[in-house]
Parts: sequence; structure tokens; C-alpha cells
Amino acid sequence: MRADQTLQPLVWLRGYNCESLINDVLAAVIVTIMLIPQSLAYALLAGLPAEMGLYSSILPLFAYALFGSSRTLSVGPVAVASLMTASAVGAVASKGLADYASAATLLALLGGLMLIAMGLLKFGFVSHFLSHPVVSGFITASAIIIALGQLGPLLGVTLQGATLPSLCHHLFVQLGEAHGLTVLVGAGSVAFMLLARFCLSDWLAVIGLRGRPLKLIIRSAPVLVMAVTIPLSAAMSFESAGVPLVGQIPSGLPAFSAPQISWPLIQELALPAFLIAIIGFVESVSVGKTLGARRRQRIDPDKELIGLGAANTAAAISGGFPVTGGFSRSVVNFDAGAETPMASVLAALGIALAAIFLTPVLYFLPKAVLAATIVVAVISLIDIETISLARRYRAADFWAVVITITVTLFAGVELGVLAGVSASVSLHLHHTSRPHFAVVGQVPGSEHYRNVARHDVLTEPHILSVRIDESLYFANAAHIEEMVCAQATLQKDLAHVVLMCPAVNAIDLSALEALEEINTRLSENNVALHLSEVKGPVMDALERSDFLNHLSGEVFLSHHNAVMALRAKGTADPALT
Amino acid sequence: MRADQTLQPLVWLRGYNCESLINDVLAAVIVTIMLIPQSLAYALLAGLPAEMGLYSSILPLFAYALFGSSRTLSVGPVAVASLMTASAVGAVASKGLADYASAATLLALLGGLMLIAMGLLKFGFVSHFLSHPVVSGFITASAIIIALGQLGPLLGVTLQGATLPSLCHHLFVQLGEAHGLTVLVGAGSVAFMLLARFCLSDWLAVIGLRGRPLKLIIRSAPVLVMAVTIPLSAAMSFESAGVPLVGQIPSGLPAFSAPQISWPLIQELALPAFLIAIIGFVESVSVGKTLGARRRQRIDPDKELIGLGAANTAAAISGGFPVTGGFSRSVVNFDAGAETPMASVLAALGIALAAIFLTPVLYFLPKAVLAATIVVAVISLIDIETISLARRYRAADFWAVVITITVTLFAGVELGVLAGVSASVSLHLHHTSRPHFAVVGQVPGSEHYRNVARHDVLTEPHILSVRIDESLYFANAAHIEEMVCAQATLQKDLAHVVLMCPAVNAIDLSALEALEEINTRLSENNVALHLSEVKGPVMDALERSDFLNHLSGEVFLSHHNAVMALRAKGTADPALT
Repeated sequence: MRADQTLQPLVWLRGYNCESLINDVLAAVIVTIMLIPQSLAYALLAGLPAEMGLYSSILPLFAYALFGSSRTLSVGPVAVASLMTASAVGAVASKGLADYASAATLLALLGGLMLIAMGLLKFGFVSHFLSHPVVSGFITASAIIIALGQLGPLLGVTLQGATLPSLCHHLFVQLGEAHGLTVLVGAGSVAFMLLARFCLSDWLAVIGLRGRPLKLIIRSAPVLVMAVTIPLSAAMSFESAGVPLVGQIPSGLPAFSAPQISWPLIQELALPAFLIAIIGFVESVSVGKTLGARRRQRIDPDKELIGLGAANTAAAISGGFPVTGGFSRSVVNFDAGAETPMASVLAALGIALAAIFLTPVLYFLPKAVLAATIVVAVISLIDIETISLARRYRAADFWAVVITITVTLFAGVELGVLAGVSASVSLHLHHTSRPHFAVVGQVPGSEHYRNVARHDVLTEPHILSVRIDESLYFANAAHIEEMVCAQATLQKDLAHVVLMCPAVNAIDLSALEALEEINTRLSENNVALHLSEVKGPVMDALERSDFLNHLSGEVFLSHHNAVMALRAKGTADPALT
Repeated sequence: MRADQTLQPLVWLRGYNCESLINDVLAAVIVTIMLIPQSLAYALLAGLPAEMGLYSSILPLFAYALFGSSRTLSVGPVAVASLMTASAVGAVASKGLADYASAATLLALLGGLMLIAMGLLKFGFVSHFLSHPVVSGFITASAIIIALGQLGPLLGVTLQGATLPSLCHHLFVQLGEAHGLTVLVGAGSVAFMLLARFCLSDWLAVIGLRGRPLKLIIRSAPVLVMAVTIPLSAAMSFESAGVPLVGQIPSGLPAFSAPQISWPLIQELALPAFLIAIIGFVESVSVGKTLGARRRQRIDPDKELIGLGAANTAAAISGGFPVTGGFSRSVVNFDAGAETPMASVLAALGIALAAIFLTPVLYFLPKAVLAATIVVAVISLIDIETISLARRYRAADFWAVVITITVTLFAGVELGVLAGVSASVSLHLHHTSRPHFAVVGQVPGSEHYRNVARHDVLTEPHILSVRIDESLYFANAAHIEEMVCAQATLQKDLAHVVLMCPAVNAIDLSALEALEEINTRLSENNVALHLSEVKGPVMDALERSDFLNHLSGEVFLSHHNAVMALRAKGTADPALT
């Protein structure tokens, strides 16, 4: 691997000019301002001190700029990874294995190293086992849990749990203890941000604003709310009125340090770290692809693995928690006009300045405002469209979504992901274990053969043509054996069965035995078994076994050849004249 | 379900006559004699008192005769199920949850109820997920562990453990304590039975013996060894010489009783019970099919589930342990001339008589003789042929065998089965995640299209025809997107890409998104995307989505139609003239 393939700045600094720099600086200023509330909010969502959100938005951005392949992806704390972090560190902290902060740091380190290893081994394909319905269902369910959980800070009460039943139970019990002024601040913030998102664009369009400036104004709503509530909170002493504030945040930059490591802790955190890393990777690639497509820039999944791995490792050694490429962060960066990862590097410097100078001001920020930011952000993650498309499109996809959402809501994020993956794999295997197969006949006047049940086709009385629409493997071998033999008994005067194999992409050893068995059973009834349109790789494998020596019939290049040859044979058969 | 469909005797008693009865009685006498050593030996292998082997060979045979669909399958204790029983009851006994005998009985009950439930629900397909390489590898590895474990009784020492490393370790440590006379008896028995198996048929053929009588004489070797060693042991007082004997066996029939049941015990035993039941079912169906094929009798997997379930439940209530249809037992029954399950019922009566009258004689039987019986029996289970076929035939099948054998040998039977199933599923998914795909062209003078790399075919400069040889689903969606787009960039003057879909049996939601993406990316380069030979069910699903509205090209019934239509269009394109 050459250095200029690994270090991305050597790619994007080529042709970097003054105009690019001006665009990147402008984007960085906007991004810095907008990411401050997000970073603080997601740290609190993960159950961590607010400053860890700032720390996770500094060094990881440098690391990603060095190794990641997307030009505009912005890494940092995101909603779903923060919820998963909360669940994982909550579990180890409740067992007394480590405190929240060091468990979160170790989680970032483990995830980072796993991602780097996967990138070096080109193991990005692992993420392909997360089907779109599973990812979409998982994010939807996570968004519901996150939004529900934020009702705690919005009402000024403490909600515990990370599943629908436990959150609802706590909410029901504590509803009476809601704190009036907190509710007012929280509800006001939510209402303002919702208005900004859904109505402001129409209003501003009236006064002639449109395009990028319009988008940026809309997206700055959380910053506006902060700019209003912080002075208000200081002036009206919200603190003494009992409104929970962000409070003391240590000023300054994070100290470099290695996370505390112990073997039992690694064992506990390995699975959640892997899941956070993979989900984060899938999300980042999806965001990166979407943004890349708009500017015809391609992203490389293996480089993304290394980029995200480096970002998480950087988070771990600078007191942060797991980071990934977030949709809303990246869109802000993109819309603000970022051209290269230089914008992210500059934004990281901006956040570093905030960590040094802004923390005294943040003291007065009500936690309810941050909760409002989260609620409004995660609402857009709820993906009804995919659920409805899956429902229309295909039962297996719909069940995969439903199972993922249900398990995530009722049993938590880790089991949710695992159940989703298991469900989609099982449904796929189940689907292929009872394959579609069709008795086919000739489309008149052509050499094309189609399903007798769907098309008006010609068949021969002594030839049964069966097209099997699936690779033959252990899960469907027994079923195919039964179906072919059953079909053969339906047709009297039968002399030839031709299995048409254009859809058979592989025949494994279990299926080879089933074919031998079909061959034997048909032979006992004086019916010959033929194959047609066997693909190259399948034929190569069959030739390495003894099957072709036992086969009572022949293998034909095309199905039409088979029918022509057998039609000639058939008319010579005295039983048919 | 009508009674005559469920109760098998109503089927096979039709046309039962005096000749059938004589054949069945003769078979029963032979089977009874031969099964006594097997039953005792497998009980000891399972770590249970010898009499449980006899009990497991009485009532289960009646139950199977009532419900099972094979005419000649003989159920009872078998080697692999006994090893799995030893592993499962050893684990719960070491935790102090129950004694060996009651754990084994509960294991039979749980397995029996699971099999009956699966039979009633027609869930026999679950067993299809055990591919042939996994079952073969598992049985081979089990046979190796069993044979190695029997070196304990053969040497007169106590070996512990059920994995290769622990057995080897114990063997190494205790080799010096081998008991001379025991070794002599054991080695002599093994040698005699091996000679009988591999050489006797040649010798007896010289004096004119062949066919069924020859087979029965060869198979009676274990009984002959017993007939010689028991009097010898009594006369020469082997016991006082320190040779371990079978010893006191309670005389009489087992008492009917329900197994001890407790919830923690059920939790511990549920998984092993399921695995024993499924492995036993697969083995029984395979034996039943093999024997049934010789007499053109078919067996019904769903009835087999109920038959085996009933047999195990019967074992559980009569003091037995898990039973299944064994290969060697069934072959003895078949070769002895059994016509119907009446032979098994009569053999069960024979074993009952043995349990009542023969136990005082069995007192003197050296355990080494039983160990020799087991070793000689399991040697034939080692299936080198499948390993070598898999190696030749297909890498994925070979890896499935190797992983199953390795994990079974080094981590025990339960993990072995689970690792085998996981490996075969993962290998299948991995195989389909990088599907074979081919650029195709017209076979001259036909309407048939084949791989340009394998056949001498015609292509058009402005049409790229790609045949994808796999269903499109989440695991291969991203890969296919990359491959198609990469292929399209190789051909300049390209105006049309046609995806030929005869092998595409399904397109899931993740793959639908990939197709949308391919369509968009090709459109950006002014290339139209077309589909051909889309199957009925796939087309039905596509019509329920919006994809066909976005598609830049058309869907053609046959690939030849597509090429004809686009060839006409292409020549009209000014860029190409």
C-alpha cells in the first residue's frame, strides 16, 4: 500500500487553493457553532459527562481527515451510537467492573481497533449482512427509545431503562413529579425547533430566502435556542428555581491517556463494541454515499473502515466515546459548503477553542434544551417509508423490519441488532429452502421456455421440463427431491425428465446426493434424467464427482437442444405411437 | 388425521400372514441375541448403569412399531446419541442438579416431546439445516472420540473427558497403570471381531457359505466373544484377578415412572435434548431411506418424527435413555429377514426375557469385551469417503466438514454440531455474497446467450449483457452494484446495459435499492438499464414497488428480444454511425 493511497490529505490537498480554503473556513465556523449543542447532548444521552461530547469532536476529526475517504463526512458523537454506548456502559457499570467514563473510552478503543483490523483485512463485507430493513428498523426503534428517554430531562425527572416497557413504567410512576419551569423551557425549545424545521422554510421563502442560506438558518435553530436560554437561565437564576442545568464543565483540552484495560471488561464490551462499530460503519457509508453522489465523489468502504477506526482510536486516547459519521452533522458540513476534510480539521480546532473558553457560559444551559435538540433530531430518523415499502414489496423484508423493531424496543439495542440479523438470515434461508420451481414449455415460434402456469406454451407428453429457480444446497435438497419425483408421477407416458438449470448457481454436496437419489428413483420407473443449461462453474464441480457417470440421461447446452433431441427419441418409442 | 394414517400397524398388518410371522420370529431371535451386548455397551458409554441399555431396548421398540413409518428400522441406544447423552448428563451431574440416571431419563423425555411436537407441526424441515458434510463430519469425529474413550475400559483404567485433548492427556498419564489381563481380554476381543469383519467372509466363502447366512455369522462375532469370555471369566475368576466386570445387574423389568423434573434441569438439558433428537432423526431417516430403497418402501419424515418421539417418550417412562434408529441394529434386523415392525416387537419381548433371566450370567462379562464391541462398531462410522469427496467437489463443503470435525474433537459434541451448522450457513451466505456473474453473447445461429469467456459468441459494441447468477439480496447487493457499474465503465460506446435475470429468484429490499442505485449511476453516464427474463414472482414484487417507474430502460421477456430491440435502436444512434 503506497502512502498516497493511505493518507487521504495527499489526495485532496492536490489542487487545494485559496478558494477551497475560504469555503472550508466558512463551513468550519458554521459547523463549530452547530455541533456544540449536539456534542453536549449526545454525551448526556450516552450517560456521560457533557465535556466528553466536546472531546469526541476534536481529535477524531483530525484522524478521520487523515484516513477516511469521504470529503464531507463529519464524524463525532451521533444519536444511535450514543444510545448503544449508554446501554453497554450501563451494563458494565452496574456490575461494578468500571465507571461509566472509562468503560465508554474502552468501548471506543475496542471498536476502533476492530474497524482498523477489518479495514486492513478487507472485511468490509461483514456489514453486508446487515440488510437495509434491519438497519432501518433498528434506527427507527432506537429513535423511539431515545425520544422517549429524553422525556426525562424534558420533564425534569430521572427516567431509567433503555427499553420501551421500563421507560414507560418509569414515566408513568414519575409523571406527577414533573417540574413546571423545566417543562416550559423544554416544551418551548421543542416547539421552536419543530416550527423552524417544518414551517420556517415556507415563511422565509416569502421574503425571498432560499437555497443554502435558508437551509443553514433552519439548521441553526438549536444554536438560537441556546443563545436565548443561556442568558435567560443566568438572569432568572433557573438553577435556584430547580431547573437542571449542564453545570460545571472542566475548561481546557482533554489529557491524552490510555483507557483502563482489564480482561473481564474487554470480554463484556467486545460484543457491544463490535455492534456499535458495525452499525456506525453502515451508517457512515450510507451517509458518505448519499453526499458523495451529489458531487460525483466515490467513497471506498475499506478506507472508511480505517478512517472510522482511526477516529474511534483517537476518541479513546483523548477521553472521548464511540464516534461515527452522522447524517445531520455531515449534512450541516455539506450545506455549509465544505469542500474537503480541511473543514472538519478547522471545525475540530473550533470545538477545541470552545472547550477552552466557552465552558463557563455553558454552565447555565438547561439540560432540557439539550434534550429538546435530541428529540427534534431523532424524529427524522423514524423511517415509516421503509416499513411501508417493505410491507408492500415482500413479506420477508417486512418481517425482518418488524422483528428488529420489536426486539429493539422490548429487549434493548444489542439483542435488537442480533435478532434482526438472525431474522434476515433465517428468512433468507427459509425462502430458499422451499424454492420456486416451474414446469416449463416452449413459447411458440421461439427457443424460449417459460412456466406453463403463466404463459401459453407447448409441451410434450413424454417429456417433463422442470426449471428449478434456486441454487441446490442442503436446506432445499430434500424438498427438491420430493417435488421433482412427485411431479414425475403426475405425468403418465413419461420417458424423460429435464431439469432446466439456468437458475442453479451452485450444487453442494448434500444436493448432489439428492440428485443421485432423483436419478435412481426415476430410473426405477424407466424415466431418464437430463440436465440443461448447467452453468460453467456448476458443470466444473459435477465433473469432479461421479454423478455424470451415474446419470441416466444427458447434459444439454440449451433447453431447446434437449427438447429437440428428446422429441426425436420420443416419437421412436413404440409406446407413444 | 385418520387413525389408519397414524397407527402404522393398521397399515402393515394388512396382508400379514403366516410366512411373514415366521420370518419376523426368526429375525427377532437373531436380533435379540445380537442386541444384548450393544445395549449394555452403549449404556456404559453413556455413563449409565448397564441395565438402562436393556430398558431402552424394550418399550421404545413397541412405541416405534406403533407410530414409525419404516418397516425395518430398529430403534434403541446407538453410539453417537450415547456419547451426546454422556456429555449432557455429565454436565448437569457435575453441577449437582441431578444424578446421571434421572438426567438421562429427562433427556429422553424432552427429546421425545420435541420430536412429537415437530412431527405434529410438520417441522421436519428443521433437520435440513444439517447439511450432509456437517452430519458426516460430526459422526466421524464422534466415532473417534468414542473409540479413544473406550481405550479406558480396554486398558482397565478410568479415562475422563469427552474431547481429544482431555482424553489424550488422561491416556498419557494413566498408560502405566494398564491392567495386563484386561488388556489381553480386550485386545483379544477386538482382534477377533476385526478378523470376523474383514477376513471371515473370504474364509467362509471358501467352504461355500455366502449371502444372508454368511452376513449373520459375521455379525454374531460380538455374541460369540461373550459366549466365550463369560464362562472363562467365571471359571478363572477374572474378578479376583482385577478385571473390571459388568457385575450386578438388577433382574426384572423396569418400573414405569415419570422422570424427575425441575425447571433449572430442563433449562440445562433443553439444548442437548434438541441436538440429540435432531441428530438422531437425521440418522434414522438416512438409515430408513437406505433400507427402504432396497425393498421400494418409502418413509415419511413427519411420521418418523412422531415414531422417534414416541420411542423416546417410552424410553423416558421406563427407565431408559435417548434412543434412535441405529444403522448397525437396523442392518442386523434387515439381514435377519425382518418383514415388518412385528420383528422389533418380538425382539423387545426377547430383551425383556433377557432382563428377567439373563442378568446373573452377565455378571461375569468383562467390561473390556463391551468396549471392544463399541470400538469395532464405531470404526465403520468414520467416513473418510465424504471428506475426500468434499475435498474434490467443492471448497465450501470441505471446510464445513473440517470445521465440524475440528470443533467436535477439541470442544465437544454440542459445540461441534452448532459450529458445523453455523459454518455451513455462513459458507453458504458467503458463497452467495460474491455471486458468479458473466458477460454473455449470442451463440451464433441460436437465441441462446452464454458466457463470453467460455463460449464463442457474438456481442454488440453498444450493448452490455450481464447475467447475474444469484438471487439479489442484502448480502450481495453492494457487491453486484459495484461489479455492474465497474463492468459498464470498461466498454466505451456503451448505450445499454441488460441484466439477464434467469437465475435471479428473488430481489429483496436491500437489492432493490442497489438496482435503483445502478439505474441512477448508469443514467448519469447516459446508459440505459434494461432487464430480461425476469421471473414471474420477481416481476410481481417489482410491480409493487416504484422501481419500474424509475427504470431508464425496459423489461424484456427474453434476452434475445432485448438484444434484437436494442440492436435496432443502437444503429439509429448517431454516435455509433
